[in-house]
Amino acid sequence: MTKFPSHLSSLIAFLRKWPGVGSKTAERYAFHLLAWEQDELLQLADLLVQMKKKIFPCHECYALMEEGDCRYCNLSMRDPRVLCIIASSKDLFALEETHAFKGLYHVLGALLSPLQSRNPHALKIDQLKSRIERLGVQEVIIALDSTLEGDATALYLKKELETLPLLKVSRIAFGLPLNSTLDFIDGGTLIKALIGRQSL
Amino acid sequence: MTKFPSHLSSLIAFLRKWPGVGSKTAERYAFHLLAWEQDELLQLADLLVQMKKKIFPCHECYALMEEGDCRYCNLSMRDPRVLCIIASSKDLFALEETHAFKGLYHVLGALLSPLQSRNPHALKIDQLKSRIERLGVQEVIIALDSTLEGDATALYLKKELETLPLLKVSRIAFGLPLNSTLDFIDGGTLIKALIGRQSL
Repeated sequence: MTKFPSHLSSLIAFLRKWPGVGSKTAERYAFHLLAWEQDELLQLADLLVQMKKKIFPCHECYALMEEGDCRYCNLSMRDPRVLCIIASSKDLFALEETHAFKGLYHVLGALLSPLQSRNPHALKIDQLKSRIERLGVQEVIIALDSTLEGDATALYLKKELETLPLLKVSRIAFGLPLNSTLDFIDGGTLIKALIGRQSL
Repeated sequence: MTKFPSHLSSLIAFLRKWPGVGSKTAERYAFHLLAWEQDELLQLADLLVQMKKKIFPCHECYALMEEGDCRYCNLSMRDPRVLCIIASSKDLFALEETHAFKGLYHVLGALLSPLQSRNPHALKIDQLKSRIERLGVQEVIIALDSTLEGDATALYLKKELETLPLLKVSRIAFGLPLNSTLDFIDGGTLIKALIGRQSL
């Protein structure tokens, strides 16, 4: 005997596939949805069904885009001399929020991860290289997570991109996040912050 | 300018209405859904649209039910002498999981809450009373949360149900949850546990 009505159980099973959602949270969401108006449920369902049709990766930079031209590949608005390599489209939106970067982006879509059997092939490095040459990029900024996977991928990218002539390769800085205190930061970050110190 | 593609923003806005979901979590869910197969999205959308048609409250006990007869109102399976009053259908499933209660249920659907302007009218007390008389219930067990709203509602129910002849009204016990230690329990619970002590 299932605990909940079977339709509710199916919905809960779907919600449990979401990141960080366990049984209790999925049940909470499902019961919450039961109290929604049918009209709202229809709208949400429609958004889900239309999603893949409305949002898709740009063929050039692989960032998510809607109909029309990719706004991040528009050379009249963006500086093609600097290319920022990021892991996912979500990172792009985080960077755009800062209004501090006006160059082009390249979304890798994945990080190297032997445990999840994602090898260099997944990064489509040849497409990246040919894009860099075609655009005449002068500097590549690697903006990947400061995780094992991010570090491994950054190292791999550096080695691969070194073979291209006259290209500067950098990685975003590690150090103290703003408004944090020394006594709460981990040792690894502190070492990185010391090594990366900047003259005042 | 919106941060995300507009379709994604709409989806995030919908997900933010869920309990305990803020912007960051809604964004995480939305990006996760982007990676789903269209087929899965269709199934999830269908579950949402069909939900209200497939699951609805029983006209007798107000518990959620599917097509057919309400399994909690089946007098050949349940004991009509005991009626358990609960706030929501979710509580019913928690109680059923224990296999410790074989009586009937009555789902209030709401608790008294002056702050959310839910007054006694919301509890439909007349329907509850007539149901108790019709079924010949001998004991009512109030199984409401141990919160301010739960306490207020329990008190109100007790006063109302006292007017019915020969009816025993009880409330589930307060005390230490199993596997907890005295030094971690709050004072209020400890007082309740002392008062409700049982002879060994």
